[in-house]
Amino acid sequence: MSKKVVTMGEIMLRLSTPGYKRFNQAEKFDVTYGGGEANVAVSLANYGLDPYFVSKLPGNPIGQSAVNHLRRFGVNTDYISRGGERVGIYYLEAGASMRPSKVVYDRANSAIAEATLEDFDFDSIFEGAEWFHFSGITPALSKEAAKLTEEALKAAKKHNVTVSVDLNYRKKLWTPEEAKETMSRLMEYVDVCIGNEEDAEKTLGFKPGETDVTKGELELDGYKSIFKQMKEKFNFKYVVTTLRESYSASDNGWSALIYDGNEFYHSRKYDIRIVDRVGGGDSFAGGLIYSLVDGKDFKDALEFAVAASAMKHTISGDFNLVSVDEVMTLVNGDASGRVQR
Amino acid sequence: MSKKVVTMGEIMLRLSTPGYKRFNQAEKFDVTYGGGEANVAVSLANYGLDPYFVSKLPGNPIGQSAVNHLRRFGVNTDYISRGGERVGIYYLEAGASMRPSKVVYDRANSAIAEATLEDFDFDSIFEGAEWFHFSGITPALSKEAAKLTEEALKAAKKHNVTVSVDLNYRKKLWTPEEAKETMSRLMEYVDVCIGNEEDAEKTLGFKPGETDVTKGELELDGYKSIFKQMKEKFNFKYVVTTLRESYSASDNGWSALIYDGNEFYHSRKYDIRIVDRVGGGDSFAGGLIYSLVDGKDFKDALEFAVAASAMKHTISGDFNLVSVDEVMTLVNGDASGRVQR
Amino acid sequence: MSKKVVTMGEIMLRLSTPGYKRFNQAEKFDVTYGGGEANVAVSLANYGLDPYFVSKLPGNPIGQSAVNHLRRFGVNTDYISRGGERVGIYYLEAGASMRPSKVVYDRANSAIAEATLEDFDFDSIFEGAEWFHFSGITPALSKEAAKLTEEALKAAKKHNVTVSVDLNYRKKLWTPEEAKETMSRLMEYVDVCIGNEEDAEKTLGFKPGETDVTKGELELDGYKSIFKQMKEKFNFKYVVTTLRESYSASDNGWSALIYDGNEFYHSRKYDIRIVDRVGGGDSFAGGLIYSLVDGKDFKDALEFAVAASAMKHTISGDFNLVSVDEVMTLVNGDASGRVQR
Amino acid sequence: MSKKVVTMGEIMLRLSTPGYKRFNQAEKFDVTYGGGEANVAVSLANYGLDPYFVSKLPGNPIGQSAVNHLRRFGVNTDYISRGGERVGIYYLEAGASMRPSKVVYDRANSAIAEATLEDFDFDSIFEGAEWFHFSGITPALSKEAAKLTEEALKAAKKHNVTVSVDLNYRKKLWTPEEAKETMSRLMEYVDVCIGNEEDAEKTLGFKPGETDVTKGELELDGYKSIFKQMKEKFNFKYVVTTLRESYSASDNGWSALIYDGNEFYHSRKYDIRIVDRVGGGDSFAGGLIYSLVDGKDFKDALEFAVAASAMKHTISGDFNLVSVDEVMTLVNGDASGRVQR
Amino acid sequence: MSKKVVTMGEIMLRLSTPGYKRFNQAEKFDVTYGGGEANVAVSLANYGLDPYFVSKLPGNPIGQSAVNHLRRFGVNTDYISRGGERVGIYYLEAGASMRPSKVVYDRANSAIAEATLEDFDFDSIFEGAEWFHFSGITPALSKEAAKLTEEALKAAKKHNVTVSVDLNYRKKLWTPEEAKETMSRLMEYVDVCIGNEEDAEKTLGFKPGETDVTKGELELDGYKSIFKQMKEKFNFKYVVTTLRESYSASDNGWSALIYDGNEFYHSRKYDIRIVDRVGGGDSFAGGLIYSLVDGKDFKDALEFAVAASAMKHTISGDFNLVSVDEVMTLVNGDASGRVQR
Amino acid sequence: MSKKVVTMGEIMLRLSTPGYKRFNQAEKFDVTYGGGEANVAVSLANYGLDPYFVSKLPGNPIGQSAVNHLRRFGVNTDYISRGGERVGIYYLEAGASMRPSKVVYDRANSAIAEATLEDFDFDSIFEGAEWFHFSGITPALSKEAAKLTEEALKAAKKHNVTVSVDLNYRKKLWTPEEAKETMSRLMEYVDVCIGNEEDAEKTLGFKPGETDVTKGELELDGYKSIFKQMKEKFNFKYVVTTLRESYSASDNGWSALIYDGNEFYHSRKYDIRIVDRVGGGDSFAGGLIYSLVDGKDFKDALEFAVAASAMKHTISGDFNLVSVDEVMTLVNGDASGRVQR
Repeated sequence: MSKKVVTMGEIMLRLSTPGYKRFNQAEKFDVTYGGGEANVAVSLANYGLDPYFVSKLPGNPIGQSAVNHLRRFGVNTDYISRGGERVGIYYLEAGASMRPSKVVYDRANSAIAEATLEDFDFDSIFEGAEWFHFSGITPALSKEAAKLTEEALKAAKKHNVTVSVDLNYRKKLWTPEEAKETMSRLMEYVDVCIGNEEDAEKTLGFKPGETDVTKGELELDGYKSIFKQMKEKFNFKYVVTTLRESYSASDNGWSALIYDGNEFYHSRKYDIRIVDRVGGGDSFAGGLIYSLVDGKDFKDALEFAVAASAMKHTISGDFNLVSVDEVMTLVNGDASGRVQR
Repeated sequence: MSKKVVTMGEIMLRLSTPGYKRFNQAEKFDVTYGGGEANVAVSLANYGLDPYFVSKLPGNPIGQSAVNHLRRFGVNTDYISRGGERVGIYYLEAGASMRPSKVVYDRANSAIAEATLEDFDFDSIFEGAEWFHFSGITPALSKEAAKLTEEALKAAKKHNVTVSVDLNYRKKLWTPEEAKETMSRLMEYVDVCIGNEEDAEKTLGFKPGETDVTKGELELDGYKSIFKQMKEKFNFKYVVTTLRESYSASDNGWSALIYDGNEFYHSRKYDIRIVDRVGGGDSFAGGLIYSLVDGKDFKDALEFAVAASAMKHTISGDFNLVSVDEVMTLVNGDASGRVQR
Repeated sequence: MSKKVVTMGEIMLRLSTPGYKRFNQAEKFDVTYGGGEANVAVSLANYGLDPYFVSKLPGNPIGQSAVNHLRRFGVNTDYISRGGERVGIYYLEAGASMRPSKVVYDRANSAIAEATLEDFDFDSIFEGAEWFHFSGITPALSKEAAKLTEEALKAAKKHNVTVSVDLNYRKKLWTPEEAKETMSRLMEYVDVCIGNEEDAEKTLGFKPGETDVTKGELELDGYKSIFKQMKEKFNFKYVVTTLRESYSASDNGWSALIYDGNEFYHSRKYDIRIVDRVGGGDSFAGGLIYSLVDGKDFKDALEFAVAASAMKHTISGDFNLVSVDEVMTLVNGDASGRVQR
Repeated sequence: MSKKVVTMGEIMLRLSTPGYKRFNQAEKFDVTYGGGEANVAVSLANYGLDPYFVSKLPGNPIGQSAVNHLRRFGVNTDYISRGGERVGIYYLEAGASMRPSKVVYDRANSAIAEATLEDFDFDSIFEGAEWFHFSGITPALSKEAAKLTEEALKAAKKHNVTVSVDLNYRKKLWTPEEAKETMSRLMEYVDVCIGNEEDAEKTLGFKPGETDVTKGELELDGYKSIFKQMKEKFNFKYVVTTLRESYSASDNGWSALIYDGNEFYHSRKYDIRIVDRVGGGDSFAGGLIYSLVDGKDFKDALEFAVAASAMKHTISGDFNLVSVDEVMTLVNGDASGRVQR
Repeated sequence: MSKKVVTMGEIMLRLSTPGYKRFNQAEKFDVTYGGGEANVAVSLANYGLDPYFVSKLPGNPIGQSAVNHLRRFGVNTDYISRGGERVGIYYLEAGASMRPSKVVYDRANSAIAEATLEDFDFDSIFEGAEWFHFSGITPALSKEAAKLTEEALKAAKKHNVTVSVDLNYRKKLWTPEEAKETMSRLMEYVDVCIGNEEDAEKTLGFKPGETDVTKGELELDGYKSIFKQMKEKFNFKYVVTTLRESYSASDNGWSALIYDGNEFYHSRKYDIRIVDRVGGGDSFAGGLIYSLVDGKDFKDALEFAVAASAMKHTISGDFNLVSVDEVMTLVNGDASGRVQR
Repeated sequence: MSKKVVTMGEIMLRLSTPGYKRFNQAEKFDVTYGGGEANVAVSLANYGLDPYFVSKLPGNPIGQSAVNHLRRFGVNTDYISRGGERVGIYYLEAGASMRPSKVVYDRANSAIAEATLEDFDFDSIFEGAEWFHFSGITPALSKEAAKLTEEALKAAKKHNVTVSVDLNYRKKLWTPEEAKETMSRLMEYVDVCIGNEEDAEKTLGFKPGETDVTKGELELDGYKSIFKQMKEKFNFKYVVTTLRESYSASDNGWSALIYDGNEFYHSRKYDIRIVDRVGGGDSFAGGLIYSLVDGKDFKDALEFAVAASAMKHTISGDFNLVSVDEVMTLVNGDASGRVQR
């Protein structure tokens, strides 16, 4: 039987300009739905797990379309509460070469940001579950959402569910001070922590090294020092980060680093021609969770997660629509892209 | 020189499903911008007047796109204040036959709904203007917006500007009680009042006759009684309404009625094969205002307005993109639709 | 809890030319999936029942896309067996006015046509089910498929499941002789029989009246005589047919007739401006089954089914994406198509 | 063996706005190619004749695309001379309801308008041909084109080729005076003359009756008087006209009238829901020529031509893509538009 | 006069997802037609030869569309037999970066796979022809197709037609054993043999060197040993292969090797940014055949073929739509891609 | 207050094939409008200046659409004269890799080419202006256009307006001899001269060095010698050129060189993944003019112009839709293309 995993967060309507059009050129928007934890859930469905996405969406046709979109890709939507006023939106303009992609958020007052404890029965939600994943976005949505996240974490722990977090700092949602206050408290429930230097500093206060992300350079040493501090303070089982080298909006380098408290392991690096990089980090989390649930050791898990998320960059939309077989072909060394007949 | 006219209200992002797709089938949205008073302004630009649209839009690329869209069709955007959080949205699904079109609003907390008196200098705005038009939607957006509308009306009157209103009751924005309280006060500044029976009842409290709009029948007698009451109470120069006969979502009958305090005049009726009926009422207001500014008598003005707005139903988007010549061909009796080479 | 209903048949890839393009003009095909019993299942999901679609689809990405498409619209796909060589296809060119729509089938050797008893566990499938629906297409697919249908019917009866059939004669799949031999045998399991005159003659041998379908005239008397014979021979609880008046490819009249062995009831008739008429009959069956499961009397059930299927003609694709509320608005007399805000 | 028929004229690039968009809304143009005599040639290819289109097109990729477009639909392009500066263009905006379709021509200085006698070897062109068709547009393109047309007609007659003309007056190309001078001279070569009242008056000087085309009324008596005069003066074998009743841009009545010098025959009338009416007249000429080449009597020929051209109105683009079988189904009375499976 | 060349094989309907969409994201398919030998024929038409494509297609509109598509690009379709049940299909999903393109075949029971000797008159087909080309796909379609190929080859030889083959092993169609048995027999008619190492091993049994195609490395030495064996055994005039270096699905290296029994010549290598690589090999064969028919020496022929096929990778669809001039510009060293005005 | 700048030239309808389609594959054209000086005007509007575009366009809907397109992006169209026969057209096919982009012009007899002095009141046009820009295309359009340009320049000088030119030699419009005769005379009014080696030779007769543009190599020394000669002869304030290295149609190197009579300054070089390179040079001129009007020194101005025009290559259409902030981010060194949220 497939294994129950739970993710909780916001799913937004994503409106993106087609091709490389700028917002003020667009006469059409491509319509899809996505959001950190929903994206993770879809990855898990593709790998054969049984993911449940916990959220709230309005009872109108836009909310229904978001539900349908999740169902289409195999996510169980039974725990999505219906009500509230609106579906959050993000507008996306794809960049190219030296022109960066641009995201405009319009997510205030979304249904999940205004949800309350009455909307969810966390005991049933975590009954029989093996894993719970959330990101730093969920508690940042509103004070109420932070409470919800904390209650979910308590219930998860009560049911012995392993917990992962993707720190994902969003400066439009809260200040570093607000983030730190909430996130530090939530970390006590977390087993696996994913986050880059900026996230680690802004949400947990760990001082980053000298890495200048705009230079596209990596400073592994900075990470190692931070990971050790994190492990020490929160006793995470694993601390993990992806390492993106932004050569341009069209080409990126992509690898990851994991620390098990004992050893640092730096994955293979992929050079990627980008189709759509939104959701890249979520697909990494999805690959990692699947691999750990599946019983892979932490190095194999990291290689699976990096390969899976490298492939995400070639797929349009937030969701990573690849199978275990496809990822394993890449993990096993075939990056040739030869036609499969 | 062309004549300055002013309209004030909200312009929204309009997201509509292509073809006759339902919301949960859509993978693309057609993108345009529209809103009652903006639509009127575009009509006036097409007829050669010099319309200024007064509103507030955020400084982000979505707000900029709305500004660009107005400019493209000849509307002066100098009085649009920039700031605030979001552009209001309405989602549109086009109906057909017995399946009605569906509008889902997501307009709360838009920039104009949160605008304040500091955003506008009404003295300059109405300097040299000949006409001011607003609808019942604008004061319904928020308490602040109601104040703004009242201040605009005062300034308009100070500058001897003729004022028209389209009552346009929106039940999602306020209750009949709220509407009546505000709208009754505003009516003292109005010269030309446009509104159907439902609007007259919900925003001004005039009791409708027995017209059952879902039956698609017209009861002119009910209208006549209401128009007389309205004229008496608010001393409007003209009271006007369009008369829509909804045979189905695909076919409508369309005519209008005007009362000058003396005589009722019922226009020619058009049977319309509908392409896009949103903005039909606004295009009627635009046709009427143009005709009155242009000095037509009230019957000719009504025929122009009805013909213009009949044509709007054949044009996609909120805006009525027809010229005076095109409207006059129809007014003059050629509804044959023969190819013009 | 929602009620389990089961439908069994083929779901095909539907490739249709956009707009009104002819096949040899098309540079793109619109892609969706559909088939009689799948279409019925989607209707039932929209009305809040819990439909399971039984079929077989290949393990390749085209088969997976069909599965995803069903899931998206709420159909349970747990009983879809995976394997076989291909997904059946139908090509569709939409007609207009006097030019008929055209369907080209390419469905031979599809996975479900080559499925065997090993692919399904009918005991679990019908465990707890309330209704089973199939059409005359399923047993026509292959000899093996006819056997499968018979086994399904036996299992359904064993579990006290009510059974409905839509006779749906397909001349490309079998001869009237073949149809009669198989279908007559299957009728003993059927409670509710849907079928027009042509179906009744070709699949069961009941002699049609003088109705000439190309004339677009209805001969209710012919139907009444046939329905009586059908009721007598097979002891159906209800005999039902839709009555289509083909004025042209763009406009049809649409009503239905039901017979409960006692009384004939002819529904309200709708005149429809057609968007997509494929799946019209299936949406009727879906409306009827829902209504009967829901406990409506047979006249109310017929009115719901006719209204629901009239609406289907305004929706693109095979599936009828309307809610109970939307159908009831039409049943209750509002066919005005006025915009719903 | 299939029969050689020749048509001569201009083929233009056709740029049309998608849907019902107005020119100043369009971000895309649908691209196809068409023109009176090219459209006739495509009809003839669909009916199994072997049509050759005589014209001149530039050697650039736009000219090549026009050639390819003709080949695709079975027209022989061996007699198309290559050279000259440009492909003529017409912009098309589809009307709806009371809004007429609009054509903007940009055809001056096209390759065929500047072609000379050196571009064509009319002796080979008419070697073995059975029929030659041209329209009043060809000689109107330029003085040189008028000469070319006359030389073609002489060669046709030398080879005993039957000649038809579609008078097709185009006011943007020449004045009635210029038209009359040229066309009267060319009529001596013509066997079958197609043209409506306006054409007959503007190109040949026959006084129309009181028909007011914008009223959508038919005055058969006026036509009869004109046809008699035409027959008398030019000794045509047949005089023919289509009769369009323009109810609106969306709906037309469509029939035709033929006169063999003895008897007037008025065809069956079709009421058409229009998809694309451009090329309607050309498809009528194509149907008539095919029928006469095929040996049908003049009444059957007229019925075929009217049915064929009625169907053209349901097909997008200039070309009529229907087969003999499809037309005959309609001629034989089935206008029901029922799905053909 | 242009020179008659003949190719024989299958033309399939190609259904590809737009952009880089995965199959289960696609709501539209781009529609075109292609297949090895048809693709070669189109190349030859672009270079000014007179290609005839021999195949069989059903009499339905899908078959007709394939015929029209060939005609559009200048291929003579007189020898295409009409009949049979279906047009073979291949579904295509374009890859990017490390995600490979994916082809799903659905070609069983296509008309050409079920064609028989009665469908073709090879004596007329090869009358006056200069060249015949086929690929290893044609005899693999069915036993009957293998016979057809052999008869075609006999007739070709009888008419002194030069013969080329592209070995093209397709593992979905036959086993290496079946391939070897048939292909070895057919090789006796062949003058020019094109095939890579895998083809040479699977269809003719020549043992490949250690080249591991997934590594994207080239081992010219392995090829040289194989080419010598092939030349020796079958006495080919030329043995040729393309050499693809798959850096990723987005970027490839591309060159070719030819052996005239005396000398090995390795062409210039191109690094290609890929738009659509399907049909790359066919465009190489087309370039080679044209060059040899045109009388180029084998080295110049190879350079033309490599440049032509490099350009194919930048063109969407199966067909290589480039002219001799365009290819020669590249052969002559201008790969700068500067805008041509 | 924003600063008035004037540009004068032709704006054309741009018809481009979507994706990388070749002309003879296209069923749709993307529609936009552009032309050297119009493109410059749009750049200036984006940077906050107040640009006026001087031209002539016909009174038909295509001309109106061009006007609307300019307005949309903030260009003042008050000085566009209306009349004349046609809008000039250019067809564009985007290249990729080694396949070059292709432009087919159809611009003869456009309204601006046939405009006369009566169409413009240069005194009002230059009243209050700070800058005037034109290119070598404008005087090349026709003899009349050359006269117009000269009159404009005289008026500009009378009003003390700074003048810039982009030499832009177009071989389809005039010969080097014609160009030299006219352009040399016009140079006396010019302050800032932009042009590459080919332009300098063909329009002004300065002998280029050995740079072979097809090799993609740069020879700065050749430029330096030419710039000195140009400065000497015409006493330009600045001589400027962009330096394009065409690696392929997909990837270019991009930098620029400026000479102030004293010092040569070579900008930073960008390697660009190209989305649309048409208008690249115009966006450079736009960036340079803005910077000089804004008071930047000539080196900073050059860096701004190069960065701005590098970004243009990532934007579809002729217009460069970037803000000062976006350009400055790149100038300041962030070319990482990281997502901006």
